[in-house]
Amino acid sequence: MSEPRLDSLPAAIETAGDYEAHAATRLDPVAWRYLQDGSGKGLTLAANRRAFEAASLLPRPLVDVRGGHTRLNLFGQTLAHPIMLAPIAYQRLFHADGECASAMAAAAQGGAFWVSSLASQTLESIADASRQTGDAPWFQLYWQGERASTLRLTRRAEAAGYPVLMLTVDAPVKLATLQLPGAVQAVNLERPLTADPPPPNGSPVFDGWMARAPTWDDLAWLRDQLRQPLILKGILHPDDAEHAIRLGCDGLVVSNHGGRVLDGAPASLDALPEILARVAGRVPVLLDSGIRDGRDVFKALSLGASAVLLGRPYIWGLTSAGAIGVAHVIRLLRDELEMSMALCGCKTLADLNMSQRGHAA
Amino acid sequence: MSEPRLDSLPAAIETAGDYEAHAATRLDPVAWRYLQDGSGKGLTLAANRRAFEAASLLPRPLVDVRGGHTRLNLFGQTLAHPIMLAPIAYQRLFHADGECASAMAAAAQGGAFWVSSLASQTLESIADASRQTGDAPWFQLYWQGERASTLRLTRRAEAAGYPVLMLTVDAPVKLATLQLPGAVQAVNLERPLTADPPPPNGSPVFDGWMARAPTWDDLAWLRDQLRQPLILKGILHPDDAEHAIRLGCDGLVVSNHGGRVLDGAPASLDALPEILARVAGRVPVLLDSGIRDGRDVFKALSLGASAVLLGRPYIWGLTSAGAIGVAHVIRLLRDELEMSMALCGCKTLADLNMSQRGHAA
Amino acid sequence: MSEPRLDSLPAAIETAGDYEAHAATRLDPVAWRYLQDGSGKGLTLAANRRAFEAASLLPRPLVDVRGGHTRLNLFGQTLAHPIMLAPIAYQRLFHADGECASAMAAAAQGGAFWVSSLASQTLESIADASRQTGDAPWFQLYWQGERASTLRLTRRAEAAGYPVLMLTVDAPVKLATLQLPGAVQAVNLERPLTADPPPPNGSPVFDGWMARAPTWDDLAWLRDQLRQPLILKGILHPDDAEHAIRLGCDGLVVSNHGGRVLDGAPASLDALPEILARVAGRVPVLLDSGIRDGRDVFKALSLGASAVLLGRPYIWGLTSAGAIGVAHVIRLLRDELEMSMALCGCKTLADLNMSQRGHAA
Amino acid sequence: MSEPRLDSLPAAIETAGDYEAHAATRLDPVAWRYLQDGSGKGLTLAANRRAFEAASLLPRPLVDVRGGHTRLNLFGQTLAHPIMLAPIAYQRLFHADGECASAMAAAAQGGAFWVSSLASQTLESIADASRQTGDAPWFQLYWQGERASTLRLTRRAEAAGYPVLMLTVDAPVKLATLQLPGAVQAVNLERPLTADPPPPNGSPVFDGWMARAPTWDDLAWLRDQLRQPLILKGILHPDDAEHAIRLGCDGLVVSNHGGRVLDGAPASLDALPEILARVAGRVPVLLDSGIRDGRDVFKALSLGASAVLLGRPYIWGLTSAGAIGVAHVIRLLRDELEMSMALCGCKTLADLNMSQRGHAA
Repeated sequence: MSEPRLDSLPAAIETAGDYEAHAATRLDPVAWRYLQDGSGKGLTLAANRRAFEAASLLPRPLVDVRGGHTRLNLFGQTLAHPIMLAPIAYQRLFHADGECASAMAAAAQGGAFWVSSLASQTLESIADASRQTGDAPWFQLYWQGERASTLRLTRRAEAAGYPVLMLTVDAPVKLATLQLPGAVQAVNLERPLTADPPPPNGSPVFDGWMARAPTWDDLAWLRDQLRQPLILKGILHPDDAEHAIRLGCDGLVVSNHGGRVLDGAPASLDALPEILARVAGRVPVLLDSGIRDGRDVFKALSLGASAVLLGRPYIWGLTSAGAIGVAHVIRLLRDELEMSMALCGCKTLADLNMSQRGHAA
Repeated sequence: MSEPRLDSLPAAIETAGDYEAHAATRLDPVAWRYLQDGSGKGLTLAANRRAFEAASLLPRPLVDVRGGHTRLNLFGQTLAHPIMLAPIAYQRLFHADGECASAMAAAAQGGAFWVSSLASQTLESIADASRQTGDAPWFQLYWQGERASTLRLTRRAEAAGYPVLMLTVDAPVKLATLQLPGAVQAVNLERPLTADPPPPNGSPVFDGWMARAPTWDDLAWLRDQLRQPLILKGILHPDDAEHAIRLGCDGLVVSNHGGRVLDGAPASLDALPEILARVAGRVPVLLDSGIRDGRDVFKALSLGASAVLLGRPYIWGLTSAGAIGVAHVIRLLRDELEMSMALCGCKTLADLNMSQRGHAA
Repeated sequence: MSEPRLDSLPAAIETAGDYEAHAATRLDPVAWRYLQDGSGKGLTLAANRRAFEAASLLPRPLVDVRGGHTRLNLFGQTLAHPIMLAPIAYQRLFHADGECASAMAAAAQGGAFWVSSLASQTLESIADASRQTGDAPWFQLYWQGERASTLRLTRRAEAAGYPVLMLTVDAPVKLATLQLPGAVQAVNLERPLTADPPPPNGSPVFDGWMARAPTWDDLAWLRDQLRQPLILKGILHPDDAEHAIRLGCDGLVVSNHGGRVLDGAPASLDALPEILARVAGRVPVLLDSGIRDGRDVFKALSLGASAVLLGRPYIWGLTSAGAIGVAHVIRLLRDELEMSMALCGCKTLADLNMSQRGHAA
Repeated sequence: MSEPRLDSLPAAIETAGDYEAHAATRLDPVAWRYLQDGSGKGLTLAANRRAFEAASLLPRPLVDVRGGHTRLNLFGQTLAHPIMLAPIAYQRLFHADGECASAMAAAAQGGAFWVSSLASQTLESIADASRQTGDAPWFQLYWQGERASTLRLTRRAEAAGYPVLMLTVDAPVKLATLQLPGAVQAVNLERPLTADPPPPNGSPVFDGWMARAPTWDDLAWLRDQLRQPLILKGILHPDDAEHAIRLGCDGLVVSNHGGRVLDGAPASLDALPEILARVAGRVPVLLDSGIRDGRDVFKALSLGASAVLLGRPYIWGLTSAGAIGVAHVIRLLRDELEMSMALCGCKTLADLNMSQRGHAA
């Protein structure tokens, strides 16, 4: 990986959105659409944003917030702030430094980076890059079609020092498709994630793709195999939250995969309250899908999420300026989160709760 | 009819909407507007879409859906899937192969095609085309102004092997008008569907068009004449659903005629729940108007519809590539329906119900 | 007035909206804006339309509506339909034939024309024109700043044969201003409607314009002076409806003056139900502001209005084709009303009521 | 200050919005954006307008309002009308005459001008200008980072004759940034308002900016130091209103700083009712943020606000035509307020209350 240079930051960046405009000019249109688009008619992509825009923040002046901070402990780890980098595949599509750049940036900022099963660099090299600037990254697992290879992949991540593991279940069927350039591959997989050939007269969906998707039984089995905390990503129904907790999951991520899988799924933020009510504090609940700035982070946390996963915005930073761009995006959101906390009279994340939230804007 | 060829499919089609864009460039503007426009100010056309976009799908991961399928039995027939082709008039306007192409496509896909009374090819030739690739098509009846000729038309359809008959009552007045090219005609009618000349000082509406519209008495009479199942299309009020069932109708179609008749009528999807509540399972209720993709099919069925009628989208396929285009559109929607079912944890249509539906998006 | 000719109708007119597009090209931009614009930021103008668009019509097929009609009796007069022409000032701005053209058209169509106090032709000549094709027009009164001249104006209208009188109170202050061409004047007024000069340190509003506005006492006095029915136009609050009825008014018009006076006033259609509930059938309640087609007429009447006042649309017809254009606009709306009635199973206006209305679209 | 000339008014100005269009062409784009933009994604800026547009005014005709007026007494002062000029910084950015022009205009119109702590002219010169045409202006205080210099600034304003003081707490952190031209400075401050350098590993927000923000203890201390009425600006939560009243504040301003600070804060108008309910008349409550015309003033007052602060619109007048432009903007809004009152049957501000308001538009 080439040395990131501070002078590579684009000029006049004040928000993550400024990186979006910059990145749009750097990426080829096919890769850009792959990154930005939602599935189907984009209903869920739009619903995610509408949910955040409908929430409001209620300023509470005159509170003494000196000494305030954004630290938290989660899954046995200490984090400087609750803004995690979501597992995004094939990051060498966006910058030659790929996942290693994101890892260095996240670690330098004291936060977590979820490395995708579909990373374009080896788990070991990404972990090494991360430890150059801070702690090890965390691992996101896609089910590998059957148990044995799935287990081998988790063992490899564990051996490479990934302390926490998250199983993604909101994308059993690969919907967004992209012709990968030859140099960019899912280098950590034993074989590509493809569908089974369906039997004669069988359905390519039910008997093809879904034949290789995990089930609740597989989740129970996986939980038994693992020593590290296991998080489940892709929960939108309270009954599924309940089920996951009973099977021993250590955390949940409310997510619609950034509006990239089932178009028509509800906004994650809209689904959050009912899930929190059912979980009732038994495990941390994280929020993924729709975060664009630090005020959105505040909104999700004030509803009760413990942390958030940031997606497209850090890829804008990665595309624009590699590791420094990613670190800058994290810093911008963190500053906005701190500003929101200060203006709403919150000294620590524990102070965020419903009383800080206002009426629907 | 010329032999449809597989290579005639337009490039880069991933959704029915891609066919729409393609068809718009193939049809002359007058025919295109006739196909696409709603009546009046387009309020109902827009309301149909808004209703589907406001509904949401709730993903339910980790369910074992292997062996899932979309089969159903309806009106004594077995269908591979619940996506029926709505009765659309004058299909030779859109492709030289006309209704025969749609019939072959629907039959090949194992689904139902409702042949319009205003078909531009003979009922017999359409039925023959259908039987080349599968089962016979179903027949849509417009009231012929009086009983005798109406009965003769139903007898002809019965003789031609159409197993099910549907009377359309949501368009007693012909609103969309189009100057038909000479070669395209309603070849199955004894005389054109026109209004009576109103009496002196009479109203062209009340005493002209409506003098030739069917009444509840006519429906009761028709029910008595027929051996095959009789479906009633164009119900939006629960009292009318009740009335139709008491007269012996075997099924109902909630429909506003695709927003093409009375502008200001409610969205079919919005009217569906109250009608289902009144019908209470006594007869199957189908949904027409507004379906654009397989997720819409899932939404309608999860509310309780037994099947849906697809309108404009299959005509986009017909216009673009004849029978193969229609078959492709059906297949695309069917795949999207299967994908929605799989992601929402539904193995069969019986699994679709309100618990799979989410909050309004 | 020149003889209107049938061949002067613009081509391809199917709706009143088509006249709008045509008229926009015929009128000079200043007069066009004067006709079309709402006051202020256009909030009320938009609210009027939004209210109609949010209402829906519920089709009721299979009803026998032969012999149906749109006749009604109102204020002792018989009308062929409930679509009245609203009092619009200075109609020679829009066509050389002015109010006489509108009068002939309304009378020929068997409906009512409310002649404005600010008509640009004499009350007598307008009444004569009206009687050439049907009944006499009705008279709209603006308060003339004091009682004596107001009474003289009503006496003149009575002498000219106007059988019904309507006092407009929703525009005491003249907001829309237009530099009238010299040839167009309010020829029936003794002196222009202007404000009093306010006293030193007085307010031009409170002590100028409003010093010449009528009060409840003036209304009571006027009621005592008149023999003909007195209608009050400009009611939006139920208490004011009650007050007017107690003072002996024979009818009310719910109106926000087409969004042309107080921007921010509620949509007339939204204000209608509460007023109808208070009036409880004691006098007819009419609806003004926002009507653009016959379906809107149906919506207003199905809520309980006895008739509607049509504004801008008939001026589009007048501008485009004089009397024939106005008559055509009336006919188009009447046909749309009949069509809506027929499709909703209504044979007469008495059949319109809430059960015909559907859910909000 | 150069003599303002009456002929410097731009042509064809009928509303404050016309000044906006004019000013946009006069100011350099950077200053224009600084004036116009909201913070973040502009959600709060838009919410402010949406709240006003959703409110409606209910016309009440036939009321005798002769002799009506807009006078009020507030904080021991008599005002001709309730439209105050909000404290806006650096007014020499917009016109060479700066704050002195605004002061002369406000005083000439008999209203109040809140002079910003960040004024670009001396408090004394602004007060002198104001007294040329009427009463003295009022003073807006930004906390100066610590008590001693804050007190010196308030003493200086008191000595210069400012009768009322308002502490702004809705902008402890300076968000909008602008490179000031050399000639424009905050000439009344002892030192610039900057953040403390944060300690090592400290947060620039919590330990930098917020270390210099006032707390409730500071407010209590300030209240004790002052003789003049003390108003608190920037309240959006009822608990904070309660707290301020208990500490002896003489009035409150519900404000989100015109959408310029915390994007996502609720519309001031939406927050007003709950605060008024809690305050229950103990002190006057003013409304800031979103006022664009006199109908907005009416809406805020009819909800219960005692007066409003006008922001951007008077700067449009200042930019366009100096003092005369500001005076004209005030007059335009005042006329619109009077017109709204007259049309809604209100003779004095005391007549404005909820019964004048209509349904949501």
